[in-house]
Amino acid sequence: VKIQRPPGMRDFYPDEMRLQNWLLEQWRSVSRRFGFEEYEGPIFEFLDLYRLKSGEGIVSELFRFEDRGGREFAIRPEMTPTLARMVAARANALPRPIKWFSLPRMCRAEKPQRGRLREFFQWNVDILGVDDPLADAEVIAVAVEFFRKIGATKDDFVIRVNQRPLAAAALQALGVPPEHVQDAFELIDRFERVEPEQFAKAWDQALGAHVSARSVYDILHSTTLEALLETARQGGHAGAQDADRLTALWTRLADLGVQDSCEYDVRIVRGLAYYTGTVFEAHAKGTALRALLGGGRYDDLTGMLDGPKVPGVGFGMGDAPVLEFLRELNRLPDLSDTLDVFVIDADRSLFPQALQIVSDLRRAGLRTDYSYKRAAVAKQFRQAVARNAAYAVVVGSELPQSGRLTAKDLRTGQQQQVVADAFRRDPTEALRINPP
Amino acid sequence: VKIQRPPGMRDFYPDEMRLQNWLLEQWRSVSRRFGFEEYEGPIFEFLDLYRLKSGEGIVSELFRFEDRGGREFAIRPEMTPTLARMVAARANALPRPIKWFSLPRMCRAEKPQRGRLREFFQWNVDILGVDDPLADAEVIAVAVEFFRKIGATKDDFVIRVNQRPLAAAALQALGVPPEHVQDAFELIDRFERVEPEQFAKAWDQALGAHVSARSVYDILHSTTLEALLETARQGGHAGAQDADRLTALWTRLADLGVQDSCEYDVRIVRGLAYYTGTVFEAHAKGTALRALLGGGRYDDLTGMLDGPKVPGVGFGMGDAPVLEFLRELNRLPDLSDTLDVFVIDADRSLFPQALQIVSDLRRAGLRTDYSYKRAAVAKQFRQAVARNAAYAVVVGSELPQSGRLTAKDLRTGQQQQVVADAFRRDPTEALRINPP
Repeated sequence: VKIQRPPGMRDFYPDEMRLQNWLLEQWRSVSRRFGFEEYEGPIFEFLDLYRLKSGEGIVSELFRFEDRGGREFAIRPEMTPTLARMVAARANALPRPIKWFSLPRMCRAEKPQRGRLREFFQWNVDILGVDDPLADAEVIAVAVEFFRKIGATKDDFVIRVNQRPLAAAALQALGVPPEHVQDAFELIDRFERVEPEQFAKAWDQALGAHVSARSVYDILHSTTLEALLETARQGGHAGAQDADRLTALWTRLADLGVQDSCEYDVRIVRGLAYYTGTVFEAHAKGTALRALLGGGRYDDLTGMLDGPKVPGVGFGMGDAPVLEFLRELNRLPDLSDTLDVFVIDADRSLFPQALQIVSDLRRAGLRTDYSYKRAAVAKQFRQAVARNAAYAVVVGSELPQSGRLTAKDLRTGQQQQVVADAFRRDPTEALRINPP
Repeated sequence: VKIQRPPGMRDFYPDEMRLQNWLLEQWRSVSRRFGFEEYEGPIFEFLDLYRLKSGEGIVSELFRFEDRGGREFAIRPEMTPTLARMVAARANALPRPIKWFSLPRMCRAEKPQRGRLREFFQWNVDILGVDDPLADAEVIAVAVEFFRKIGATKDDFVIRVNQRPLAAAALQALGVPPEHVQDAFELIDRFERVEPEQFAKAWDQALGAHVSARSVYDILHSTTLEALLETARQGGHAGAQDADRLTALWTRLADLGVQDSCEYDVRIVRGLAYYTGTVFEAHAKGTALRALLGGGRYDDLTGMLDGPKVPGVGFGMGDAPVLEFLRELNRLPDLSDTLDVFVIDADRSLFPQALQIVSDLRRAGLRTDYSYKRAAVAKQFRQAVARNAAYAVVVGSELPQSGRLTAKDLRTGQQQQVVADAFRRDPTEALRINPP
């Protein structure tokens, strides 16, 4: 019986795994530099957790199942509900600020088709317990630093930033009734991914009675930050506060040295209902099709779980879009499997001694391997080269008399005799071959 | 609405996550030293993959579900079927030996009760394509090196090794018919975890017609390796070959310097049907209740997937038993969250400069944080200490005039002035505070 990999799922053979681990390590390393701590949660949660956050509509996008007790679960499609549950459970005990990141794997029941993954990894970064726009600036700065670290410059990507209350005010000023603002956000969220006619049709169908697609289209194409701030300030106290928050965010982005990677963009509203303030996305420059990351401020996520109100801001970045972005930039790292030492026995009878040396090297922390089949020395050297070993150490027939081994630097070709006892005691020191 | 964590699942808050990451990193590091490469697979597979390997009985232990197309999947309960599928799919292209490890998370539909986890992580180590007992010795040596690395000595654990064909021959010599040997293995596998009366009852019920529980009990308590090898050699050519393989394994374990952590034990047979040669388990000394790892040789795992026959040997080690083992030994590592630098602004008006310095430090790779709330210097110092920062850097009112910052080593209390420009260019160098 031949059984395939499930559709939309990935296998990570060692070549792909090295790249995946490299990406996870970049995410982890940048997060730690910014003082974030890592957390994780279960691969599945009670189905109700997702219903509660996203409504009944989410259920068809989930892989769900019951246990024998009839309890309903779903494989996590995102990390935020788990974060909310974990923070709500210890809301009073956790010291503020809560600066957490996670690298979860998650699944969505996408229709299997080319390029649509059912399983993916995501970098999640969140700051909870801080209402100040400084926290919004911090999470944006982490994202920018990640892009810099992987070799992308500000010519390659842009963080597009908006603020939902300001966008809501602008839409209401146009005539969108308050109760339809979320519908408008969801339509605008799809704006760049559909044809203008499609957008106009969908808008007019849903909200044409209040505002024409044409007027919205104009706003989405021409609104500047200055114009929006001006409108907001004219809108009274609340509007002025929102404008001040966005201005403060802009200053903090400059202080943190990332403002030149950010742009104000009224078209970025994010579809999800729970964002309450700043929203942002990263895009590869020149393509607006697919966000490299998306996030924003949510000020009552834990409240939905009967926890105390904890303000938060964060983002999620999927692995597949980032790797595709790097592929297009031709900046994927060159990662080969390597060894520190490949041990060669020049004579079958020396194999037990070779194994003892292998063990010493491994115990000293060196990545060490050898041929599992006894073979000619030349063939073993070829294996050493094929495995990208830095050194080959030859256990030769002179060992019993001279107590010496031959060490060859496979990059320079330089070769030297080393005293076996000293080598076994401290191989790292002994391998420091003198320069030519 | 209050929604709980699903029963039997774990949350990893930052404290638990550091420990989990530490364990995964030990596994990864030891595997790499031995020249193993990491791989991963999907979190769920077609249900039929598990049916095929383990029979219909496995289905009730799985979390299973369908997609909208009616295809049946299950969250993986173990990694071996995925390994078999991945190797079978590329059997002819993969260079030999295939030395792979993985650190998968997986789920079993255990009845939720105290101490029974429904989700866990497992270290999987396998060598495929090598029939030589040397490969069996290598995977056992990786396990021993792991125990050494985490601080366990040979007084703390033992690898108990057996060989299935020899055990089968001994059972048949007693009178167990060949077609019941697998049943006998499954009973013996539970031998140490049940009361003697329970074992006797189960045995006599299943196999009492052929051999009494009493005779098996005697064998399980008294058989030495020498006696077993002798019996096998008397059994003709096949028996002699099996005896030679076990002898060769014993020699290789000595060559690799791990034989003193291994014991021959006729009671170790493993329940799973697919093992065909060497079988082994690790146990904490003094407790036979729970295996720390289990593994063995399987010579036709890929064959069940219509792949070419590829011999293999490997083991799996769960995270929970190992952490429990370390807890009992009082050898859990002390892992705190730490920072390299905590930046303090002595004056609210200097905060933007402080943020610029924070950015420079982070970009230079230093884990750097600061207070999100403007607070008195003394309070910020307390925060620096609470976060386990190695250094506090104070941005003081002298900065604009003198161009200097104050750096304090929080471990020694030593304090010095550093030139801000040089510090921002190369903070690592600048922080090298002179010894007192």
